[in-house]
Amino acid sequence: MAKVKVGIVGLGRLGRQHAENLAFRIPNCELLAVCSVIQEEAEQAQKEWGIKYAYTNYDEMLQNKELDAIFIASPSGFHCEQIEKALNAGFHVFSEKPLGLYLEEALRVQEVVNNHRDQVFMIGFMRRYDKSYAYAKKKIEEGKIGEPVLIRCYGLDPSKAINGFMQFAKNNYSGGLFLDMAIHDLDLARWYLSSEAKQVWAIGGAYAHPEFEQLNDAETGTALVKFENNKMGIFVAGRNCAHGYHIETEIIGTNGTLRIGTTPEKNMVTVFDDTGAVNECAEGFLERFEQAYLSEAEEFISCIRENRQPSVTVEDGVLSTALGYACKDSFETGELVTVQSPYKALPSSI
Amino acid sequence: MAKVKVGIVGLGRLGRQHAENLAFRIPNCELLAVCSVIQEEAEQAQKEWGIKYAYTNYDEMLQNKELDAIFIASPSGFHCEQIEKALNAGFHVFSEKPLGLYLEEALRVQEVVNNHRDQVFMIGFMRRYDKSYAYAKKKIEEGKIGEPVLIRCYGLDPSKAINGFMQFAKNNYSGGLFLDMAIHDLDLARWYLSSEAKQVWAIGGAYAHPEFEQLNDAETGTALVKFENNKMGIFVAGRNCAHGYHIETEIIGTNGTLRIGTTPEKNMVTVFDDTGAVNECAEGFLERFEQAYLSEAEEFISCIRENRQPSVTVEDGVLSTALGYACKDSFETGELVTVQSPYKALPSSI
Amino acid sequence: MAKVKVGIVGLGRLGRQHAENLAFRIPNCELLAVCSVIQEEAEQAQKEWGIKYAYTNYDEMLQNKELDAIFIASPSGFHCEQIEKALNAGFHVFSEKPLGLYLEEALRVQEVVNNHRDQVFMIGFMRRYDKSYAYAKKKIEEGKIGEPVLIRCYGLDPSKAINGFMQFAKNNYSGGLFLDMAIHDLDLARWYLSSEAKQVWAIGGAYAHPEFEQLNDAETGTALVKFENNKMGIFVAGRNCAHGYHIETEIIGTNGTLRIGTTPEKNMVTVFDDTGAVNECAEGFLERFEQAYLSEAEEFISCIRENRQPSVTVEDGVLSTALGYACKDSFETGELVTVQSPYKALPSSI
Amino acid sequence: MAKVKVGIVGLGRLGRQHAENLAFRIPNCELLAVCSVIQEEAEQAQKEWGIKYAYTNYDEMLQNKELDAIFIASPSGFHCEQIEKALNAGFHVFSEKPLGLYLEEALRVQEVVNNHRDQVFMIGFMRRYDKSYAYAKKKIEEGKIGEPVLIRCYGLDPSKAINGFMQFAKNNYSGGLFLDMAIHDLDLARWYLSSEAKQVWAIGGAYAHPEFEQLNDAETGTALVKFENNKMGIFVAGRNCAHGYHIETEIIGTNGTLRIGTTPEKNMVTVFDDTGAVNECAEGFLERFEQAYLSEAEEFISCIRENRQPSVTVEDGVLSTALGYACKDSFETGELVTVQSPYKALPSSI
Repeated sequence: MAKVKVGIVGLGRLGRQHAENLAFRIPNCELLAVCSVIQEEAEQAQKEWGIKYAYTNYDEMLQNKELDAIFIASPSGFHCEQIEKALNAGFHVFSEKPLGLYLEEALRVQEVVNNHRDQVFMIGFMRRYDKSYAYAKKKIEEGKIGEPVLIRCYGLDPSKAINGFMQFAKNNYSGGLFLDMAIHDLDLARWYLSSEAKQVWAIGGAYAHPEFEQLNDAETGTALVKFENNKMGIFVAGRNCAHGYHIETEIIGTNGTLRIGTTPEKNMVTVFDDTGAVNECAEGFLERFEQAYLSEAEEFISCIRENRQPSVTVEDGVLSTALGYACKDSFETGELVTVQSPYKALPSSI
Repeated sequence: MAKVKVGIVGLGRLGRQHAENLAFRIPNCELLAVCSVIQEEAEQAQKEWGIKYAYTNYDEMLQNKELDAIFIASPSGFHCEQIEKALNAGFHVFSEKPLGLYLEEALRVQEVVNNHRDQVFMIGFMRRYDKSYAYAKKKIEEGKIGEPVLIRCYGLDPSKAINGFMQFAKNNYSGGLFLDMAIHDLDLARWYLSSEAKQVWAIGGAYAHPEFEQLNDAETGTALVKFENNKMGIFVAGRNCAHGYHIETEIIGTNGTLRIGTTPEKNMVTVFDDTGAVNECAEGFLERFEQAYLSEAEEFISCIRENRQPSVTVEDGVLSTALGYACKDSFETGELVTVQSPYKALPSSI
Repeated sequence: MAKVKVGIVGLGRLGRQHAENLAFRIPNCELLAVCSVIQEEAEQAQKEWGIKYAYTNYDEMLQNKELDAIFIASPSGFHCEQIEKALNAGFHVFSEKPLGLYLEEALRVQEVVNNHRDQVFMIGFMRRYDKSYAYAKKKIEEGKIGEPVLIRCYGLDPSKAINGFMQFAKNNYSGGLFLDMAIHDLDLARWYLSSEAKQVWAIGGAYAHPEFEQLNDAETGTALVKFENNKMGIFVAGRNCAHGYHIETEIIGTNGTLRIGTTPEKNMVTVFDDTGAVNECAEGFLERFEQAYLSEAEEFISCIRENRQPSVTVEDGVLSTALGYACKDSFETGELVTVQSPYKALPSSI
Repeated sequence: MAKVKVGIVGLGRLGRQHAENLAFRIPNCELLAVCSVIQEEAEQAQKEWGIKYAYTNYDEMLQNKELDAIFIASPSGFHCEQIEKALNAGFHVFSEKPLGLYLEEALRVQEVVNNHRDQVFMIGFMRRYDKSYAYAKKKIEEGKIGEPVLIRCYGLDPSKAINGFMQFAKNNYSGGLFLDMAIHDLDLARWYLSSEAKQVWAIGGAYAHPEFEQLNDAETGTALVKFENNKMGIFVAGRNCAHGYHIETEIIGTNGTLRIGTTPEKNMVTVFDDTGAVNECAEGFLERFEQAYLSEAEEFISCIRENRQPSVTVEDGVLSTALGYACKDSFETGELVTVQSPYKALPSSI
């Protein structure tokens, strides 16, 4: 089979990383088209990487019949519509998380995906493709820790990025801390526990940055989730982590425990100076998950070539979103919230 | 001033450790009397350590006017009454936690303590005297992490001890996981956050050991607590920790984070073999908190000699107990529980 | 400029890794030809990766005028001759370490390289391109640890690989422990200390595997090296590391210390079970240095496109080899050995 | 048996720590006398701790027939003579290391000790009594790492203490880096390897502090030692460790490796701030070896009461000193030095 020809939409920070991966680092893949509403971005990428086509209009790119697949890395608010269009145009689709900013959008995506079962669809829960996270999953499947009982997930953005986020959040709907920041962890929890959420209580506040309160959002927050079979999930999300980008996960089982990223080390260097033994920390998601972003794209291309679907499904996107909204709801009301199945209300369509 | 003369009641595992410390390792202290309802225990201790008096009857020991202070390390159900008697008999009193098994008992102790303000009273929240915990407190007071926002506490007993505990719990009221096991962590949270609890949701279950369900108790459980000023507390307690006795605490502040005991290492040895790099873990509280048990007793003796009260107060015992009961209540009902001030109902007496 | 077209010779374990990188993961690079004396290896690679040319004869590959560069990953005994031929045929050349099995070979390579200064030549001291090692170098250059004073390098192959090595060593001249295994560390020492070796004493033995004695080689050995300005180097090399592939480096400076890979962790997962907290370790060089092998090849391609030479030079290869031979000499004679400059004896030719 | 009555000579920093331990923290021990040539030191200790006798004259203290044992913590230059006098006066003797500043002194002590076999003699190699070091020894004896092959010992004093040391060293003979600083490590090596040294090469220099060169001493140095059976020892000693007091030991065996104190952590607290994850380090020997100093004194008292000799012997002191002098000799001459048995020259007396 020939190389898979991909067009990417969205050339922001993460979009560029994806584009470079697709252009240069993935076997049997060719980045044939780039698309950005910002013309310079598209033109620069085209020139810099020698890409055949550059678009400023997404619909135009979908007209390009040389393409096999569309890679969506645009802002969250566009995902739902762009996924739908690309699937309907017959392309395989990879979309960055989330499926949409609202649960209804996520459900609509699921419906469309289900109507195009011959096309590959993949959502960008890249952590599942991180070597350490994948290794932990393997250990669990091998029974190393017995039955998983509790998961604890930290997802903390660095303080250094907080001003940038505030700027963004004042002008856009991010979904809030639990949907925007914790969504990867909610997916991981479901994946590792093999269990769905039933109840959640979420709390939090604006501690160093009172502006968060005006946004009706939390700077740092915690959700405690009861899953099926009394399994437990602890989620700490935040935007004000002094030491960097702190992604840490722990799974406690009946016979053992796994920890991933206990200290979010930047690399294997330890510096000893008069402050002590210092392990510098990762500064952001591109640094921490460089390999995972690459591996998920490799998997996407492999799925297309091998005519199979990835193990992470559109339903994972929907259910994680539903849980994120339950967290948000609990945080906003202060109440204990029962996580509703997103499918109950939609018996006919799904 | 002459040596402080102490009589100890209770010569179980922890009682013996306290007795040895009092007998041999504390400046200006003399262990003058031991008391146990088990005659052999008392006699063996007397003989082994050369103690002047041995009793099987607590009331008799209280008659001994050579004594300055009573050290209570008996089973929890006796604490309240023994504290009251000793204070009323004019002695300085150290009592192991808890003040009593019920909140009413704790409040009664507080009343008695308040009526004997010239006598030293100390409750055995030894962790505050552990070098690492004390160091963390100092760092917080120096402003190292800014304002504390979130505390996460793990208190996990080793799997190896679970059969012993089940045996005990079938015949005695332990208070349950949150009161018996998490009480030290609840105290630490109040201490580090300088804040009182307002709401709690606690969940848990019996995962590897269904017998816990019959006891209406949890094998492993988690409580999420909202403190004043939106501060957050996460408490994980358990009785089935495969790798040993896992006491870990983290305090996240607006400018930094402190972790104490991230890996509950047994000592400074790392073993490298074909499984990898292995840090063996502490096996129990006597091993982990050897220094803290000694230091708290030193502080008790110093307080007596220097005619001052320790910084840990009877109120700490009452409020931690009240929070423990709120956790227990939430776990049992499944509901979000508001933590009631234990003092509201008792306006006249306190 | 068009893509750099590369032909690789040698398709063993490391050769295949290099070939895959060149074929798929490096911008502006095209793997145009593969060459192996084992016909099936060449044909399989051609088929599997869709490579245009496959050769079993190195000289034939050098006739291919479409090629820009030759990548040498053949057994060590062929390096010298293959480098010379490729340079003389006008190609840019990357060669795996060592330049040759004997110092004379290394010097001959240097002479040839110096006669083709317009062609890029690079030796595969990949550790310099490992993120952690490069980060440490940057820290030193920034003055973070003051003046480097002592370097300690561990290069230990896993016990699991020892039988394979014995099989190889019985039939081939490997150079022995210090030349074959420690050569990367000798290069690192020179790089980090910015200093050349003056004296060495090397000891070692055959501890678990007496066969090493028959080979006149050491299973595990240590060399202490005095560098210019009294700087110190400690090198521990071995073939019998129970926990895996242990590459660790420490640089002690006048104001601080850097450690790289203190525990040679496989990934970011820690497993807690009844043995304790376990960090599994890397199993081999392909796992540990995956990123470095990729980055050095990227650098090679960039150098060609940008018409510059890499910072690691043929002289680094010569001087590290000279030091390796001094270690070997000391180990074999038991004497303190003065490290001779390899250039002294050859005034006319270089 | 009654309490062991001890008189201590030397009330410097370490002497005071020993005295406090003997006075308050050791079962069945009574500190009956203190002795210091500095009258205020003796008087203050007497008053502060309620000690019965205070002396400024060592010979007078030896007249005190109430005493059972003498504990020597005076400056190194006095050890030999004071040990001899105390043994000859019939007392059990504990002496801080070294036995003497010169090998001849150490041998004289050994002769005297051997002439008083009914009295307990113990030398203060306290590390053997440190919990972590003792645990490592136990692991080795259990065969956990197979046969020990290589030991690496770091003994680094903190930079903060360097001015104090320079002041001392300008006016006193310290023995130099290898005898004064590395002596504990030399003892540990002999203990863990169960092997004696045969050859040594030692190098080093004055890097940040040129004054060391004027003292004919090294600021930081390394010795490589070949032991019997080709076992290897690497010793790094220094006076200029930026991050604190760094005592680290590694034992590599045929089946595994042990490390003790890989990072010389101050306690179990990790501080996360904008520099990263920081483990503060121990600041000095009193902090790091607090428990070991106590445990060795406990063992000394137990030996007296149980009429047995400690496992650390006077011969350990002699042989470690002999090795220390070989290191010093090698450092000073630059030559490879054969370690002479200190007993060869003295066939008749020992």
